[in-house]
Order: sequence, then structure tokens, then C-alpha cells
Amino acid sequence: MGPLEGIRVVDLSIGQMGPSATALLADMGADVIKIESRHGDPGRGVELQPDGSSAFFMTHNRGKKSLTLNLRHPEGKDVALQLASQAHVFVQSWTPGVIERLGLDYEAVREVKPDIIYASASGFGPLGPRAALPAMDMVAQGVGGLMMANSGADGGEPIAVGPTVADQTGAFALACGVLLALYHRERTGQGQRVDASLLGGMIALQGWHIAHYLLTGKMALMSSDRKMRSPLFTYYRASDGWFTIAIIDPRQWPALCRIVGLPELEGDPRFAETRSRNDHASDLIAIFDERFAEETRDHWLKLLEAEGIPCGAVQDYQELAEDEQARANGYIVEAEDPRLGAVRLPGPPVQLGETPGEIRPAPDLGQHTEEVLGDLGYSWEKIESLRQARTIL
Amino acid sequence: MGPLEGIRVVDLSIGQMGPSATALLADMGADVIKIESRHGDPGRGVELQPDGSSAFFMTHNRGKKSLTLNLRHPEGKDVALQLASQAHVFVQSWTPGVIERLGLDYEAVREVKPDIIYASASGFGPLGPRAALPAMDMVAQGVGGLMMANSGADGGEPIAVGPTVADQTGAFALACGVLLALYHRERTGQGQRVDASLLGGMIALQGWHIAHYLLTGKMALMSSDRKMRSPLFTYYRASDGWFTIAIIDPRQWPALCRIVGLPELEGDPRFAETRSRNDHASDLIAIFDERFAEETRDHWLKLLEAEGIPCGAVQDYQELAEDEQARANGYIVEAEDPRLGAVRLPGPPVQLGETPGEIRPAPDLGQHTEEVLGDLGYSWEKIESLRQARTIL
Repeated sequence: MGPLEGIRVVDLSIGQMGPSATALLADMGADVIKIESRHGDPGRGVELQPDGSSAFFMTHNRGKKSLTLNLRHPEGKDVALQLASQAHVFVQSWTPGVIERLGLDYEAVREVKPDIIYASASGFGPLGPRAALPAMDMVAQGVGGLMMANSGADGGEPIAVGPTVADQTGAFALACGVLLALYHRERTGQGQRVDASLLGGMIALQGWHIAHYLLTGKMALMSSDRKMRSPLFTYYRASDGWFTIAIIDPRQWPALCRIVGLPELEGDPRFAETRSRNDHASDLIAIFDERFAEETRDHWLKLLEAEGIPCGAVQDYQELAEDEQARANGYIVEAEDPRLGAVRLPGPPVQLGETPGEIRPAPDLGQHTEEVLGDLGYSWEKIESLRQARTIL
Repeated sequence: MGPLEGIRVVDLSIGQMGPSATALLADMGADVIKIESRHGDPGRGVELQPDGSSAFFMTHNRGKKSLTLNLRHPEGKDVALQLASQAHVFVQSWTPGVIERLGLDYEAVREVKPDIIYASASGFGPLGPRAALPAMDMVAQGVGGLMMANSGADGGEPIAVGPTVADQTGAFALACGVLLALYHRERTGQGQRVDASLLGGMIALQGWHIAHYLLTGKMALMSSDRKMRSPLFTYYRASDGWFTIAIIDPRQWPALCRIVGLPELEGDPRFAETRSRNDHASDLIAIFDERFAEETRDHWLKLLEAEGIPCGAVQDYQELAEDEQARANGYIVEAEDPRLGAVRLPGPPVQLGETPGEIRPAPDLGQHTEEVLGDLGYSWEKIESLRQARTIL
């Protein structure tokens, strides 16, 4: 039982950002009808497996219904508008211009559903000189400053983040916008447009770092290079793997010296204060590197945890998949997939005590075409004639 | 005018994750009362400037009121509970155990406000063996798999993301949870717990990549090393800066060959298909590296854009700050800060047509103590006696 039971979403979006936002709504009980062309959301083909499954598609379309529809047929557009007229939320991710040509822009949808929440996922936002240009996750990481912020030092090469964090952050922003608009609609009856973008998400993801630059003209201290970080706030290699240490309270410095078995470091003038430790970072990191390499990760983590020092294993996905903590909190859950059987998948991204929602399977292409059209009142004969006209798959 | 006008939030959280979530609520019109100790949220000291300002604090506490309160005084706790009794949302970020000792856990708050939405921001989630351990952004990046996913190849060193993406993603998840719970409360009158964590946020941020691993036992193709990526989906250095190319449609390959002025590449058997191009990636990247270095970034971007190829400049923060696109969409806005005067700051992370909300200044420590206590009905005499008892600053 999710908090969005009874909410109906018509979703034209493809790829990751829009679909991931509506997947969250679906987890939380919304009835999300995904409209796909006869070729399907291209996301169905991302990292396609021999068994026909795609984790990309399954993750971003869990819990939805799939309706195939040719939106360029007048009757296809009519079906979309009929669905919109019964929906609370309409989501699309075309670049500006395309959706107007399809006759499914905000004005058109509002005509059939005056209080619609019309949510758009875009690359660069609906306004400005690059509004109509296509974008992808990595493009937004570059334009949005993340790749250069990662490089840290002046003149370093840009460093992309491997996972598609621009898409997912854009999805969170869009989901927040839809939820805010749903709340407003519930209280006032008024619908509205909601816009989020990859670029806007990137700026929100780095919010305080960008604010720091805007206010001071300088970059905040950060780097993807572990040796360019504070020696008390970076990562080290133990004999069997990497781990992080994240000390912000300088009162934990003596404890750290004891833990590494080098109490004499505490009185060393090079390392007496936060500033001097940062000034002599390479010396200190070299000392720690040597010492930490002598024992296992678990050895160090137990000692650090006992002192209340923030720390953790640097886990690969295999370790994460077996992590008791991820399981205990429902971050990774067991689910039943109609095609694959029992599987494990990431759970909903937030945990609600009374209305937790749940992960449900993603649809096959067109799996719900007849059901959705039947609900709209289409007869079998009419559905068959739509199929013959290739308006539906 | 934001969609959350009239919503009152009592916020005990510190640092980034909790405060950034409630900053979003404040942008959208909520009345957020931040309760701080006499030392203030430690976030006030992050990258502190000579003028006493901190972009970290300003970003994560914009639009809030600040009340100083000693929660370990019985009268301090009473004030917090009185505020909670008039609030819709209560937010806290203590590790489990601490909040119970303060007498401000869910049960205690629910006693004074049965339909409260009680939102907790934690490092590892409320359950499991590591629930009570402290965490920081980088710790979650390590435990949550992002640092190893970035390293890409087997055995590579972990790579942290410079900006604090775990905190901000956790904030988005928490904000979504609160908005979902507000919606549910509006429809049913029922409050509930909401839990989000840095670890949970990390898993959501990498959702499909983790799902891919869980389903296949293999890593999806991704890397922070530009030469480990597909040559048509990576980044290159022009004569005056870096740029991205993100081709997923193989039909754009001939256009790319024309753009770089090497039409003979199209027929080269090494590069005839997506698979062969990936197999001979280092050859192709070397050819492109040489060619792209001969002209400016703008030269290449204009040609790529004209062909509809997703691409963009790799911008540093200076370029991003001047980016017309970021300004046109309200991703970076002008604001008036009482201390600093006219400033530019990141805007709200999502754009709503009718109820857009706005960025408002962050409070000085205790700036609203008297106002908030006065609203609770405290007399000047009573406020003075609380001050004498050091229950308030």
C-alpha cells in the first residue's frame, strides 16, 4: 500500500530520467501507464541480456503498465489525450518542438484535463539557447561542471562519474516537483507545469560547491585524487582492500595515532593541527599508507569504529550485494520477476513507515495495451481495427 | 508563492543531508524552524570565509528560521515538543540512540502530535548492524559501491566523486519521502515515519547499475577513464578545452566521420560497427585525439550540434557560472543576502509553473529565537529566564 494509490500517471518519457521519476511514483502506488512506440522505449535495449532482459529497463520501468501506441496517427493521439483526460500527471521527455508537433504539449493536454500536472524531463531545461539540443548523462556531467570538479586540481583532465548520476538526480528533482504539484493540486485544485533537467539536476547535486564558487571565486576543497584530500578525510589500502576515514573533529587525531600504533605522531609538529597536517599531507599519507597496508581492512575498521571515527569499507558491487546493512533496511530487496523468477533488486529509495510501497515488475512491450484500451471503453472490434491500422502494435 | 505555504517543519538535523532536504521544503514555501545548539550547526563552519559566511551553510539552510535551544535542558526539550505539537514535519539526523536519550524520538513526538511526519536522515539506515555508526559523504560513497564503480576496471584504485553526492542524493530521497507522507496525510490524516540514508541514497543513485550486477553478476560498461569508454561516448580535448560526445544511434557514425574530415573511417573495417569500434577503441580514440586537438571546442560542438549528435562543453565552474542556459532556466539565480548584498546562488532544483517557490537567505545563529518563542506564547520575562538558564543562547 503506497501513498499514491489512486493517482494515475500517463508517461511518454524514455531513457532514464523521466522513467526513473515515474518508477518512484509507481513504487509508491501510482498507476503509471507507459506509452511506447512499436519499437519500444530504447531503454529496453540497454545492456540487453541473452534472455531478453535489461536491468536498465527493469529498474526504470518497474511497476508500470505498457501500452503501445503510434502517436503520429490521429487515433493514437486521441487515445493519449483520452488517457490524459483521466490522469493526474502527464510526463514527457521530448526535446521542445517535438511534443508540440505531436499535439501533446501542455496547452493541448490542459484542454482535455484542466488540472493536469504536466511534467517535462529535458537535457538543458525548457528555456535558453540550448533548450532544443539533445543531451545524455555524460553530456550533462560535462556541461554541469561535475567532470571538472572531479579533476580537482587546475588543468587536470576531466573525470566522468561511471554511473549515470545526472539522469538519476534529474529523476529525483522531477519526482520532487511532481509530488509538490500533487500536494498543491490536492489543496487548491490547480494543476501546473513541472520542469526538471539533467543540467538543473547536476547543479542541484553540486549545490554548495557551486555556491562556494559563486560567492568566493574559488573551488571548495575536493578531489577525486585521494592524495589531494585531507589525510584524515580520504581512503587507504589495507592488506586486503580499501577503506575510508572521514574525521572532521580534530579531537579524534590522538585516537587515530594510537590506532595506527604510532603515538609519537601526535606530538610531531608537522601534524599538530589540522592546517599543518594538510600542509604536510603527503608525508602523513605516506606514513599511513605503509602502516595500513600491514593489517586487514576489518582490523582497522573495528578499531576506528570503537573510537567513533566515521569510516567504512570501500565495497565493490559484489560486497554491496551481500551487505547485511543494505538488506536490513530494504535498500536491496527480493522480488519475483515473471520472466526471471526470484531476483534481487534495489528497493524503493526512501522508507515510509505506514505506506512503504513496493517494487513491482516492469512490463513487456505492449503487455497492457488491451487492458488499458478496454478500461477506456474500447470494444474488441475497435481494438482490432486499431491494430490493423498499426495505431497499436 | 510555494506549494508548501502553511506547512511547518521543525528541523533538528545538521550537516548536509537533512538540512538540504528541508532547504528544498523551505524554497517551496514551508516554514522551517531550525533548532541549533548554542554552538550552532557545525555546517556553519564548513569552508568559513573571512566575512563569516559559509556557502555550505547558506546553501543547506536557505529560507529557514534559527532557534537556539539546549535540548538537554528539560525546558529546552519542552520547547521542542511544543514546536513539534504545532508542526506537520519533524526532521532529525542523530544516530539511533541519541534521539531517544533526548526524549525526542518518534514515540515522544507522536504523543504531542499524533499525525506528525517524523523524518530521519542517517548514514546507514535505522536497522542493521551498522545503524548506530557515524558516516560522512565519502564513507557512503565507499560502502555504497560508487568509488569502486568509478574505478571501472578490475583492481583499479577506488575513485571518490569530489562533490558530496551521497549527502545530496540522500537529501533528495528524504525530501521525496516527506512529500509523499505529506500527501498521504492530506488525504487520510495519518502521519508516519520517513527514513532515508546516505547508503540508501547511494544505492538509488546507482540503481540500474546495481540491478545489472545483481541480475547478471557483471558490471555494466562504465568507467571514469575516458579511454575505457566507447569511442563514440566519451570526451576529447580540443585545442582550447574538453568536450563530450554521446552517440547511441549508430546511424550517426557516418556524420561523425564527415565532421572530423576523415570520411575514409566510415568504410574502415575496424570501425564498421559498434562492436568493432569498441574492439578497436584505442585506435579510434588515438585518431580522434589527434584530429580534435587541431580545432577549438566551439568549432566541433557547432558541427556536432548541427547533426543532432548529443554533445557539450566540459565546463569548469567559472564557465558554468556564466552559462546563459543555467541562468535562463533559473538554475543559477540572483538573490539578496542581508550580509553579502547581491549574490548569485543555485536556484530551486525543480521548476514549477504556478508555485515556483524562491531562494531566501539563511539565518544567523539564533536569529529567530525570540520570534519563535514569542509565537509559542512565551513572555519576554520567560524568554529572559530561559536565556539566564542558558536554555537558549
